[in-house]
Order: sequence, then structure tokens, then C-alpha cells
Amino acid sequence: DRIGLPEAILGEGKKTETFVKIMKKMAKRKGRSIGTRVNKEQKQQLQKNKGQLEMEWHEKANIAVLKTEKTKQKEEGKVGVICAGTADLPIAEEAKVTAELLGCKVYNAYDVGVAGIHRILPVLKKYNEENIQVLVVAAGRDGSLPPVVAGMTDIPVIGLPVSTGYGAGGNGEAALLSMLQSCSLLTVVNIDAGFTAGAMAAKIAKT
Amino acid sequence: DRIGLPEAILGEGKKTETFVKIMKKMAKRKGRSIGTRVNKEQKQQLQKNKGQLEMEWHEKANIAVLKTEKTKQKEEGKVGVICAGTADLPIAEEAKVTAELLGCKVYNAYDVGVAGIHRILPVLKKYNEENIQVLVVAAGRDGSLPPVVAGMTDIPVIGLPVSTGYGAGGNGEAALLSMLQSCSLLTVVNIDAGFTAGAMAAKIAKT
Amino acid sequence: DRIGLPEAILGEGKKTETFVKIMKKMAKRKGRSIGTRVNKEQKQQLQKNKGQLEMEWHEKANIAVLKTEKTKQKEEGKVGVICAGTADLPIAEEAKVTAELLGCKVYNAYDVGVAGIHRILPVLKKYNEENIQVLVVAAGRDGSLPPVVAGMTDIPVIGLPVSTGYGAGGNGEAALLSMLQSCSLLTVVNIDAGFTAGAMAAKIAKT
Amino acid sequence: DRIGLPEAILGEGKKTETFVKIMKKMAKRKGRSIGTRVNKEQKQQLQKNKGQLEMEWHEKANIAVLKTEKTKQKEEGKVGVICAGTADLPIAEEAKVTAELLGCKVYNAYDVGVAGIHRILPVLKKYNEENIQVLVVAAGRDGSLPPVVAGMTDIPVIGLPVSTGYGAGGNGEAALLSMLQSCSLLTVVNIDAGFTAGAMAAKIAKT
Amino acid sequence: DRIGLPEAILGEGKKTETFVKIMKKMAKRKGRSIGTRVNKEQKQQLQKNKGQLEMEWHEKANIAVLKTEKTKQKEEGKVGVICAGTADLPIAEEAKVTAELLGCKVYNAYDVGVAGIHRILPVLKKYNEENIQVLVVAAGRDGSLPPVVAGMTDIPVIGLPVSTGYGAGGNGEAALLSMLQSCSLLTVVNIDAGFTAGAMAAKIAKT
Amino acid sequence: DRIGLPEAILGEGKKTETFVKIMKKMAKRKGRSIGTRVNKEQKQQLQKNKGQLEMEWHEKANIAVLKTEKTKQKEEGKVGVICAGTADLPIAEEAKVTAELLGCKVYNAYDVGVAGIHRILPVLKKYNEENIQVLVVAAGRDGSLPPVVAGMTDIPVIGLPVSTGYGAGGNGEAALLSMLQSCSLLTVVNIDAGFTAGAMAAKIAKT
Amino acid sequence: DRIGLPEAILGEGKKTETFVKIMKKMAKRKGRSIGTRVNKEQKQQLQKNKGQLEMEWHEKANIAVLKTEKTKQKEEGKVGVICAGTADLPIAEEAKVTAELLGCKVYNAYDVGVAGIHRILPVLKKYNEENIQVLVVAAGRDGSLPPVVAGMTDIPVIGLPVSTGYGAGGNGEAALLSMLQSCSLLTVVNIDAGFTAGAMAAKIAKT
Amino acid sequence: DRIGLPEAILGEGKKTETFVKIMKKMAKRKGRSIGTRVNKEQKQQLQKNKGQLEMEWHEKANIAVLKTEKTKQKEEGKVGVICAGTADLPIAEEAKVTAELLGCKVYNAYDVGVAGIHRILPVLKKYNEENIQVLVVAAGRDGSLPPVVAGMTDIPVIGLPVSTGYGAGGNGEAALLSMLQSCSLLTVVNIDAGFTAGAMAAKIAKT
Ligand SMILES: Nc1ncnc2c1ncn2[C@@H]1O[C@H](COP(=O)(O)O)[C@@H](O)[C@H]1O
Ligand SMILES: Nc1ncnc2c1ncn2[C@@H]1O[C@H](COP(=O)(O)O)[C@@H](O)[C@H]1O
Ligand SMILES: Nc1ncnc2c1ncn2[C@@H]1O[C@H](COP(=O)(O)O)[C@@H](O)[C@H]1O
Ligand SMILES: Nc1ncnc2c1ncn2[C@@H]1O[C@H](COP(=O)(O)O)[C@@H](O)[C@H]1O
Ligand SMILES: [Mg+2]
Ligand SMILES: [Mg+2]
Ligand SMILES: [Mg+2]
Ligand SMILES: [Mg+2]
Ligand SMILES: [Mg+2]
Ligand SMILES: [Mg+2]
Ligand SMILES: [Mg+2]
Ligand SMILES: [Mg+2]
Repeated sequence: DRIGLPEAILGEGKKTETFVKIMKKMAKRKGRSIGTRVNKEQKQQLQKNKGQLEMEWHEKANIAVLKTEKTKQKEEGKVGVICAGTADLPIAEEAKVTAELLGCKVYNAYDVGVAGIHRILPVLKKYNEENIQVLVVAAGRDGSLPPVVAGMTDIPVIGLPVSTGYGAGGNGEAALLSMLQSCSLLTVVNIDAGFTAGAMAAKIAKT
Repeated sequence: DRIGLPEAILGEGKKTETFVKIMKKMAKRKGRSIGTRVNKEQKQQLQKNKGQLEMEWHEKANIAVLKTEKTKQKEEGKVGVICAGTADLPIAEEAKVTAELLGCKVYNAYDVGVAGIHRILPVLKKYNEENIQVLVVAAGRDGSLPPVVAGMTDIPVIGLPVSTGYGAGGNGEAALLSMLQSCSLLTVVNIDAGFTAGAMAAKIAKT
Repeated sequence: DRIGLPEAILGEGKKTETFVKIMKKMAKRKGRSIGTRVNKEQKQQLQKNKGQLEMEWHEKANIAVLKTEKTKQKEEGKVGVICAGTADLPIAEEAKVTAELLGCKVYNAYDVGVAGIHRILPVLKKYNEENIQVLVVAAGRDGSLPPVVAGMTDIPVIGLPVSTGYGAGGNGEAALLSMLQSCSLLTVVNIDAGFTAGAMAAKIAKT
Repeated sequence: DRIGLPEAILGEGKKTETFVKIMKKMAKRKGRSIGTRVNKEQKQQLQKNKGQLEMEWHEKANIAVLKTEKTKQKEEGKVGVICAGTADLPIAEEAKVTAELLGCKVYNAYDVGVAGIHRILPVLKKYNEENIQVLVVAAGRDGSLPPVVAGMTDIPVIGLPVSTGYGAGGNGEAALLSMLQSCSLLTVVNIDAGFTAGAMAAKIAKT
Repeated sequence: DRIGLPEAILGEGKKTETFVKIMKKMAKRKGRSIGTRVNKEQKQQLQKNKGQLEMEWHEKANIAVLKTEKTKQKEEGKVGVICAGTADLPIAEEAKVTAELLGCKVYNAYDVGVAGIHRILPVLKKYNEENIQVLVVAAGRDGSLPPVVAGMTDIPVIGLPVSTGYGAGGNGEAALLSMLQSCSLLTVVNIDAGFTAGAMAAKIAKT
Repeated sequence: DRIGLPEAILGEGKKTETFVKIMKKMAKRKGRSIGTRVNKEQKQQLQKNKGQLEMEWHEKANIAVLKTEKTKQKEEGKVGVICAGTADLPIAEEAKVTAELLGCKVYNAYDVGVAGIHRILPVLKKYNEENIQVLVVAAGRDGSLPPVVAGMTDIPVIGLPVSTGYGAGGNGEAALLSMLQSCSLLTVVNIDAGFTAGAMAAKIAKT
Repeated sequence: DRIGLPEAILGEGKKTETFVKIMKKMAKRKGRSIGTRVNKEQKQQLQKNKGQLEMEWHEKANIAVLKTEKTKQKEEGKVGVICAGTADLPIAEEAKVTAELLGCKVYNAYDVGVAGIHRILPVLKKYNEENIQVLVVAAGRDGSLPPVVAGMTDIPVIGLPVSTGYGAGGNGEAALLSMLQSCSLLTVVNIDAGFTAGAMAAKIAKT
Repeated sequence: DRIGLPEAILGEGKKTETFVKIMKKMAKRKGRSIGTRVNKEQKQQLQKNKGQLEMEWHEKANIAVLKTEKTKQKEEGKVGVICAGTADLPIAEEAKVTAELLGCKVYNAYDVGVAGIHRILPVLKKYNEENIQVLVVAAGRDGSLPPVVAGMTDIPVIGLPVSTGYGAGGNGEAALLSMLQSCSLLTVVNIDAGFTAGAMAAKIAKT
């Protein structure tokens, strides 16, 4: 059945109290709630006040999950997540954890820089053999990794711009625009929208 | 094998002479070349100078195809293309013809406005029954159709902003930004990038 | 008589001391002063230093009112305020409280998301029966709620963009632009201008 | 009953043939169709091919109307349209004709410049006596007229920015932004959106 | 002799230590140094470490002056500074103090709002009688005061946009653009550039 | 008496017929009308239809003047106009002719490039000796001339950005922004606003 | 001696007559003048009116040269110019011809697309062996070629963005921004500034 | 051999722990690692945890270096770094230290303002005599120094915009745009990209 987004709550910009209340209400109503861009205080209060619910914390992705019980989800669909380095990692992880929570098996390669183009080929070869159905490729600054990857594989690529870089075109703007202008085949999501990228990848992989 | 973009030539911004030369060279080398955003003069010169090659003209999509011979491509993958009305039609058609040229069976619904939300439901129901694997939804001005469609189906949606609208946010800008901000699940392509949307849809449908 | 704005003071960006001084001066001169976007410190100092004046505090709207005495204002004009959820609530409340302070009866519906379009219809039906004369519809991110509501009713709609959303088009920019581009009939106010929306709604309802 | 926008067709950007076809189809289905931003060629072809339908042409507003028969609409609601001079006139007329087509009695004052502030007062005094319920005030360049008018009357004002002015802030951008920032009470529509302003004014006047 | 800017030091963005050092070096070399946009810490350290130099502090303008001795400057040139209210005051004061430090007699009127247009006329009448040679008019949000003033007097007006306002066109952007688009005669300086406006006014008044 | 702008008509964007009508009406009412940014057709029609009025044509400035009779205006105030070269000349001329029409004696130097800084000094020396009271300095592309000139003289400078340059910052944008950011003392007018610069210069020179 | 730009004239935006006059004056004064972005009419008039001067025409680069006599310039400095395809060619040629006119030996490779990364390596290997001292790499749309090239060689790279691409980031904007954000080592020139890139390359190669 | 950037780590935006870990790993693998935009906490933790590695700290440039041992690098290539004053100094120093770390002899002149043009000539004369091969010229606000310097020397100039200035065009935007529009010969790097400017200068000087 449906792979929509109803149970996800954006932590960023919400007061801790409000966030915890919504997370719990959702988890009770739907069996599970997913909190994204969760800050430290929100995480701690969730832990403290979760009551009977079970909580899962994804450190690198800043994602919290509340559940009524341990549910076994059968794995379905295969997704790959690629990024170039340290700065893009939290957003890449947000995409990865989201796709996993939606039931996919997710492969990742996090140290594939454009400089190290030779490092990408064996990764893509393996992904191809594993029949991975869609890739999320994250990149900040000049956003050059997704077009390069898309030019080297036939697996569909979702470009995920990350808000790094300073000066003109900084904060992900150059990355977004150059992905939109890419000569290789890409669709894109908004800057830092790791959740959207991961959820869309899961939807494609499972369709 | 590969579903890349190598054989597509952007007509827009090229001198007619150059365009015709590249189209022919490509068709000879690869068996087929696809010209997009082809203007009248380019079309006529292509027709006149195509020599032994065969030419296909897609009026509403402004796409020209040169081929060495009639090839039978087995249909593979199912794609849906939806737009709201007259203004978005040429770009929607560009997506449709592109996906067809890449071997997909394409369904389309071109008069589904937001105003007529009741018109969308039966279309989506049918697409679901037909096991369509991906939708391209085109929209100009406020770009509100793709989010609405994405909220009503589990088929993955590619948002295709169209350069309509005047004043602030005109020329597809509001459409692009609101698709990037969408609360429903979407990936997007650039403004008027019907070719990219259609090619990506084909790639997803065939993967 | 007049339904102007003379007695409203924007708290944001004013030093606490200055803010309190102006609020008191206004209240004494006009019988009442309204402070908007009032922060905690400003609120506390107002409370402490209000002297003989009476103070009203609207928590969710961050609005403070100073009055010379309890005045009974007869209710005149009916306004509806609609928003989709948690993030838009403070700005929607700013509009609501403003319209009430200007003498209107205000109805509100704060959990009407686009996803839950079925939730909007009964609300609009009731508002119609109640002869509500104008609606304020608040929305952040892609700003899609006001056009949808405007497409479902004949009550005039004022679109109120809210500064939510991150990445391209974030901070209310996509919301504002897509409301300006809306195919449904809307007028708009600036991003986060709950006060303007509420005051204008009151003016329309009372004219 | 309903005062929606269904029967209006934007001429701008449509091929003449398509425009004429839609205008006729609409007029037949609904009894009347309204074409806005109609260019010369579109107007002439409409005249030539209108068949049994009746046509009305509004020169200064570039609006064409096709009707099945002469219908008598009882006048309901009073609207005022104000602008400063020559450059804003076509857009102001678009608003005026629209409101008239929707059944309102429209008053207009087209030579009220900011320079001539003394000229505005008697106009507003008369509008007040006539119980006009809403004003559309059009302005290009610095957009200063609508705030000034709004500061001088209690009739609600819709600001209509016009795409005049060159250099930074030209093409209506400064006008739109300064109306959004106005200290006087205004709602606004998009740049050159005379149709939206007129239709909204009619809706407010008739509610 | 020359009325240049050599002795002015922008405090904003400089480390306190660096600021104090430059202020002292300048004061010793030129007899006087002027620090603008000076924060609290910078002011206190200047006071503490001024040694033999004399210090003048202009609270509302955030301007500090270091001098080798009490100098008598004969007054020359007359400048007027006008603004609408509380929010614009510090920038208006920066202009006023700067013009005074450059030897002008400065008149000011700080509560002349657009709403209170009747309040402007007697001020301008007096300025005219006093033979004031140039006006600085500060305004934030929609920047409508300078055009209005320029339309009511023959004294040349320098428009000074102030970084107030939120949402689209906020932070002085609408004010700057609408002054650049003004139909009345204006020259402008950058947003919050009270120092530039005041220094230019002094230069004009003294030429 | 007054040196306002009432009798000036912007030709750009007006239909020839409308332009000619307004020019004549103004000339009759006020004794003289000034048309700026007048195109060829407008000029020719004005000539043909001027009737009893006298016409003056300023070729390089694209300014037309209609007058009831030859009037002798005594010269009052001295203005200097400086630009770097060919591209800025028409806008510089617009400023020059405007100041002359408002009664000033105008000096000009049109081949003073930044490259030729040695060429500026003797010009400024002469202007100083002639007691010129204000300079208009026009510049496109990087807008570097006005700051350089302002750094070399005590005569007040009005920076006039010109819409030259291509790529990022082209069309006068870089010129305007760098004049607003200038470390030398400048006030500015909008891009290509030669009329405003000239009129303001005349006003300053005559005050 | 000096390798400045004094003798170059931008044709774009100049009236043919003016352009021809300046070209001739310059050629006579300096022995040679270089016209860039020269259109057809300008070229023809130059040919017709060149008198005793000699003319050189560079078709692909739109560059015209007027000379007093055949001069032999000894070749000095080696420059490489690289671009991906048809659309970037005229701008790449502008850079190449400029560097040649300034006395360099220029190597070029015009069909090195990112897709064909294997095509770049042998080119760079050869350039290295030839001791080329600087590369100009032109790219439109997403501007991804210069970073890729810079990542594969130690020869300094000047990025030259080209005004291709449509939609968001089109007209060279994405290309410029992503070059400014590049993780590889690049300096850049403005969009379409082939002349600047070529002249700077020559200067570096000859220093 | 190669003069790439592999061993440089951007401190800004990295968690201290991550930063220290990468710095150490790099230093061990390559013999040296360079940390740029290093904040206080990062510097202190690096010092504390450097183990056997040696650390070098460049206070004004905010650059940290970790090394396995004292290496002697022979000096090769000469670079000049110029800026106008206090505000640009840290970025100019970032460029200077980077070029030194890459093995160049670097000359600098940090108090050469545009106002003090006479101060630049002797500096450039000396640089010429010393056979400096490339200049980095840093400037904020209106960015006018690099064009002026480039107009006075034949040494190639890299323009380095600095994020100073407030209001329109502030934060380095006017500086970047006016360098891109410069009439003198310049290539540029991004705003505040001292590292890129310095590394590119070193590469050019050593090629
Ligand atoms: N309509 C189109 N929109 C976007 N990309 C296109 C379009 N048509 C062709 N392309 C791609 O653009 C590139 C061709 O660019 P060009 O060398 O200018 O013909 C190839 O990567 C094509 O696949
Ligand atoms: N939240 C608000 N948004 C927009 N305008 C406001 C708000 N609160 C007060 N105002 C108006 O802002 C003006 C007061 O500005 P100030 O002088 O800064 O207090 C008055 O015209 C008020 O009616
Ligand atoms: N508030 C201010 N706004 C604009 N420019 C200023 C201001 N204060 C000082 N200046 C000028 O900024 C330059 C000094 O910059 P700095 O070297 O950073 O102190 C001098 O040209 C001053 O005249
Ligand atoms: N200050 C700086 N400005 C620009 N790029 C830098 C800077 N410092 C390091 N880099 C480069 O940024 C990349 C490292 O990014 P990261 O993976 O975030 O450490 C490498 O290519 C470095 O050479
Ligand atoms: Mg591929
Ligand atoms: Mg869905
Ligand atoms: Mg409706
Ligand atoms: Mg009012
Ligand atoms: Mg005046
Ligand atoms: Mg000066
Ligand atoms: Mg390299
Ligand atoms: Mg030079």
C-alpha cells in the first residue's frame, strides 16, 4: 500500500513542546512517527517523555522515530546514496535513513569526490550488479557530482543540493542551479531536502 | 541497454545550417537523432536536406527525428503525462514524445485543471490500474497541479514547471519554487525542460 | 467611524524601553494601543510599567493591548481565518486577534491541510451559512492552500504567506510568488503580515 | 450566485487560432466568454469568425467579450478605480471593465497624481457619499499612489502595481514591493494584474 | 578647504582593539577622528584608552569623536533632516551629527509621518524661510516620505532608505527601489548610509 | 521660483499619438514642454503636428522641446557633466540638456576614462576655477569613474549609472551597486536616469 | 612591452557609423585596432570604408582587425583553449583569436564534452608536453567542464562561462556560479567574456 | 610536481572533532595538511591533540598547518598581495599564507587605498623590478582597487572581492560584480576566497 509522507514531522522551527506532542500523537494514531531535523533538546525531551512508545535515534541523520512496537518491515526496493565528503554527509544520511524507514535496502558510498572519479566506477558497477533502481547523489558548492555520476550509469539519479559554499552561489544555490542545468539526466529536489530525496527514491524503488 | 541522451540535439540557439549538419551526422552515426525546440526554418531545412534519411515531425512538441530506416522498437515501460491546459501543452508534449521515442507507452491527460479536481481522480484511477510507473505533471503560473496530483496517488511524480505567468514569479519561477517547496512528494526538472522530464520518466519506467 | 491602524505599534526591532513608552502614550491618547510582534521582555516590562492602564495579552499571537478601561465594543462584521497547521499558527492568530480587536466576530479553522481537502468543504459550507464576508488563508512553503480555498468558495480570500520553508523559495518567498501567480482569485499581503491581513479583513467585513 | 473567473481567457501567449477556438467554445457553453490582453490580430480574427455570437470590444482595456445574446445584468455593487496618469491607464481600464462585466457600477478617476494630492480629496469624498465599497488604485514606478489613497479614506484599497519604470526596481518591481511594505492598509495583486484586481473588487463589492 | 571623509572610521565589523587604535592614530594625525556605527564595547574601550585626547559621544547616532583639543568651528551651511518616526531615528541622527561635525547648522523634524502630511507643510515653510539648502529625508518600509517631501518643496532632497520592514522588500530594499523610481526629484544614498547622506548634505550646503 | 519637473514627458513606452497630444497640451498650459527618451517616430510626428508651437530637437540626448515662443532665460548656476566614452554619451547628454533647459550653464568633458586619470585633473582644476557647484558623472559597466572623480575634488558629485555591460552585473547593475558602496562621497540616481541627474544638478546649482 | 587592452573596441551596442569611426581612429593612432562582437552590418561598413587600412576578419569569433600595414609579430607564450561543443564555440574562438592577436601560439580542442572525459586526457597530456602555460576552458549550462579539466592538470585554468541554458540558472548564470564555487582551482571571467579570458591568458603566458 | 589543493581542509562549518580528525589523517598521509577559516576552538583542539605532529598557526589568516616534520621548501615563484585597509586584511592574509605554503615568495602592501593612488605607483614599480609574476588584489565595498591596479601595471591581476559593505550590494556583491564588469584586465575568484586566490597565484607563478 501507500508510501506517502503523512507520518513525518519537521523538527526545525517547532518549539520542543509542540514537537514532542505532535510526534506522540502521530505515533499513537499511525503506529509510527518520523521526526526530521531534530535538535538536541527536542531529542532529549522526546526520550524523556516518550512514555510507552519506543524510540529510535539516528545520530548522523538527526532523525528520531517513535513507534508503538517493534515492527518488522520486509525489505523491498534497493536505493543507492552517494556523496563526496564530510560536509554533505548529514543530508545524505537523512536521505538514507528515510529510504530505510520506508522499507528499502540502502547502499551508500560517502567518500566519492569528483577529484577521485576513479573511485566512482567500481561503486556504480557494484550497484548495477545489485540491481539498485535509483540513486540519490548529494553535493554542495558547485554541485558537480550528480551530473558526473548520471553520465556514468543508467540507474536514474536524483540530485540533492546541499547548503555548503560561501560567497556568490553559496548555501547550495550554485549546486541547485547547476543540477537544473545539467546536460546529464537528473531530477532534483530542493537544497538540503534529504528527506524528500530519500522518500522519492523509496517510492521509485518500490513502484 | 543504455537509455542516455546522446542522440538529442537542442535546436534552440543553433544556426539552421549547424543544426541540420549535426542532426544528420548523429543520425548516420547512431541510427537516429532527435532534435528538440526546433523552429520552423530548421524543420524545413531538415526536410529539404535529409537525403536518404527518414524524418518524423512532431508538430505540437516541436521535435524532429532523423532515422536511417524504419525501426521497430518494442514498447517497454509506462509513463503518464498530465497538464492543466492550453499554455502548458507544448512542453507536456515535448515530454510525451521524448518518452515515446525512448520506447515507452505514454498516456496523457491534458485538460485536468486544479479547478476541476474531480476530473483528476478517474484519470489517476485508470493510470493505477494500467500500472503506470511514473507521472510527469506540467504546470505554469503558480505550479499548483503537481503537488495536488502527488497528494492523490502513489505513482512517483516528476514536476515540470512551465514558463507561463507574468509579473513577479512569472516565466515559471513561482512554479519551480513552489514545486521545490511542495509538501507532497515531488522531484523536479528545470523550467520548460520537457525533454529532461520525458527522458527521466522513460528511464525510471524502464529500470 | 474609521477603521484605520493608528493605534498599532510594531514591537519587533524596537528597544523595550521605547516600545513601552510609545504603547503607554498611545493608550492614553487614543484609549487603546495594540502592540504586535511583542517579545517576552517587552511583554514583561509592559506588564510591570503599565500603571493605571489595563493590559490584555494574546499568547499565540504575540499581541499586547493597553487600555484605559474596559470598553464594550459591539461586534460587527464576520471574518474567517484558515491555516494548514502548526507552523502557520502564530501568524494566523495575529490576523485573528487583530480582526477581533477591530470589532469583528472571527471564526477559525487551523488544521485544514491541502492533504485533507475533504476537511475544507464542511468548514466553507458553515462559513457560507454564517454569512462570513471575507477569509484570511495563511500558508507557508509552497503556499498552495489559499488558491485551493479560493477555488472552492465565493467568499473573497486574502492570501497570507508565512515565512516557513528552507532552501530555494524558502522563508515565504515561494508562498508569496505562487499566491501572486494564482489562477484562483486572491489578493495578498506581505510575508508574515498577519496584522495587515486581519486589519484589511476587518475593514472589508465592516464596509 | 458565484462570481468566479471560469469564463475568462488570457489572450497573451496564445496562438490566434487557439484563442478564437477557446473563446467560442466557452461562450457557447457558458453564455459569455471574456478575453483579456487580446492583441490586434486576435481581436480581428475573433470578429471575423464569431459566427452567431455577439462581440463587445473594449479598446483601452484590450478586452473582448463573446456573448450568445444581449443579456441585461442588474447592477450590483460599487467599485472605484483610480490611477495617476497615461502609463497606468490600460491596466486600470482592464480592472474597470472586468468589474463592470461582473455586474458592478464602476467609478473612475484617471488623472489623480501624487503631485496633485489636492485632486484626490474631492474624489474620495464623492466616493464615500456614493457608498463605494472598494477601491482599485493602480500605480507604476514607485507605486506611491495606493498608500497615499489608503491613508485618506476608510474604503478598502486593492493596490495594483503597473509594469512601468526603467532601471533598478523597474517593470513594476518597486511598485509591488513598496505596496507590500506600505504603512497604510493595502492588499495587493500581481504586477499588471488588472483582471484580478477588478474581479476581486467586484467580489468584495457584491459580498 | 576640503570637506572630504578622511577622518571617519566605520566601527561596525572592526575588532574593538583595532578600532580604538585607528581612532587614536587618526585623531593624532588629523586633530580629530569620527567613529560611526560604534557599538557599546567599542565606545567603552575608547573612553578608557583615549589618553590625552578628548572624546565626544553621540548616543542616538552611535557616533564617537576623538579630538586633540576643543576646537571652535564656525557654522557654515544649513541642512534639514526629516524622518517619520521611531524606527528611522538612529540613521537620521547619524546624518544629522555627521553634518554638524562637518560644520553645518542642522534643523531636524523627526515625527513627520506620511499619515500626518499636514505636519510637513509648516516644517518646510520654516526651512524655506531659514534658507536651508538641502534636505536629508530618511524612510524605511515603503520609503514613501522622501518623494512626498520632494513634491512639496524646492529645496533639493537626498533620500536615505532605512533597513526596516520585514518580508518581501524588507530591510530597506523597497525603500531604496522606490526612491530610485520616484517621480519627484531625488538623489539617493545606500540603505542605512546616514553618514554618507549627512556628509553629502554638508558638502552641498557649503559649496 | 520653483525648479520642479512638471513639464517633462517621458516618450519611452507612450504611443506616438498620445505623446504628441500630451506634449502640446503641456506646452500650451505651461509655455514649454520637455519630452525625454523620444524615438524617431515620436520626433517626426511632433514636428509635423506642432502647429503654432516652436520645437527644439536635441539629437544626442533624444530630447524634444515644445515652446509657445522664444523665451530668454537668464543663466543661473553652473553644472559639470563628465563621462568616460562613447557608450555613456547619450545619457550624459540627457543630463546636460536637462540642466541647460532648467537655466544652468553646463560644462562637459566626455572622453575622460579611468585609464586616462591624468586627463581628469586639468578638467577638475578648471571646473574649480569656474566655481562649478555640482558634477554629474556618468559610467556604465563597473561604474568606477564617479568614485574616482569624487576622490579628486570637493565639488559634490551625483553618480549616474548607465545600462552598459553584459553578463553578471550588466545593464548598469554593477555600476549602480558600486556607486552605492563607494568609499568616496556620492549620491546616486537610477540607471540611465540622465534627466533626474540633470534636473537635480540644476536644482542644487540654483539653490 | 605592455599587453594592455587599449586598442580593443566593443562593437555590440554601438551604432555602425560610430564603430567604424572609432576603429579607424584607433588603427591610425596605434597601428592596429581590434573590434569584438562585431555584427554583420558593422563588418560590411568597416570593409567598405577602411580606406588605406588593411582589414582582417575572424568569422567564428566575430572579431575584426584594422591595421596600418602587415606587421610580423614574433610568437611568444602558449595558450590552450578548450570547450565542449557547438554552443560554446563562438566565445571560445573570441578567446583564441584575442590571444593570437596578442602574440601567443594558441592550441584548441573544441569537442571535449564532459560525457567524453576520456577525450580530455590525451589533450591535456599533449598540452603538458608542449609546455602550455595557461588554459581557457569555456562552458555553458551547468559549467561543469572547467572544474573537471582543472582537476586533471597542473596548468592554471581560467573558467569562461557561456550564456547558454534556459530556465533557472540559464544564460550562463549557473555556469558562472558553479565556477565560482568550484572545488578545483579556477579563476573566472564574466559570462561570454571571451576577449577578457583570451587577453588574460596571453598576459599570463607572456609574463 | 603537482600544485593542487588536496591537502587543504575548510574549517568553517565542520565540527571541531571532525576537523581535527581529518587534519591529522591528511597530515599523516601527505606529510602536511592545511586548515583554512579555522576558528578558535578548532585551533585549540588541534594544538591539544596534534600528538607527534608539528603545528604552525597563522593568526591573521586563520590558517593552521599540521606537519610530520620540519620540511625545507625551496622558494619558487613570486607573488604580490595588495589591499586597501583594515577590513580586507584577513582575506588578503589568507591568500598570502596560502601562496607561501605552496612555496612562493610573497610580497605584500596592505595600506594602499584608492584615495591614496600615489601610494600604489612605487609599490608596482618595485614589484616590476622584482619580477613578480602575478598580483592578488583584495577589495570590499565597491571593489574599485583591483581595476585601478590592473590599469597601472602589466603584471596579471587576480581580483579578490571581500564581504564588506552594508546595504544594497553589500557583503562583497558589488565588489564581485564590478570586478566582473571591469574595463581593466582581471580574472576573479569568489567573495572571500583568499585561499583560491593565493593557490591560483602560486600555480601561475610556478608554471
Ligand atoms: N530540450 C532539451 N532540453 C534540455 N537538454 C536537451 C534538450 N535537447 C537536447 N538536450 C541535451 O543537450 C545536450 C545537447 O546540447 P547541444 O550540444 O547544445 O546540442 C545533450 O546532452 C542533449 O541530450
Ligand atoms: N505587525 C505589523 N505588520 C505590519 N504593520 C504593522 C504591524 N504592527 C504595526 N504596524 C503598523 O506599522 C506602523 C507603526 O510602525 P512603528 O512606527 O514602527 O511602530 C503603523 O502604521 C502600524 O499600523
Ligand atoms: N557609516 C559609514 N557609512 C559609510 N561609509 C563610512 C561610514 N563611516 C566611515 N565611512 C567611510 O568608510 C571608509 C573607512 O573605512 P574603513 O577603512 O573600513 O574604516 C572611509 O572612506 C570613511 O569615510
Ligand atoms: N578557504 C577555502 N576556500 C575555498 N576552498 C577551500 C578552502 N579551504 C579548503 N578548500 C577546498 O575545499 C575542499 C575541501 O572541502 P572539505 O571536504 O569540506 O574539507 C578542498 O578542495 C579544498 O582544497
Ligand atoms: Mg546516465
Ligand atoms: Mg502521493
Ligand atoms: Mg472562488
Ligand atoms: Mg484608510
Ligand atoms: Mg520639489
Ligand atoms: Mg571629494
Ligand atoms: Mg589541477
Ligand atoms: Mg594592466
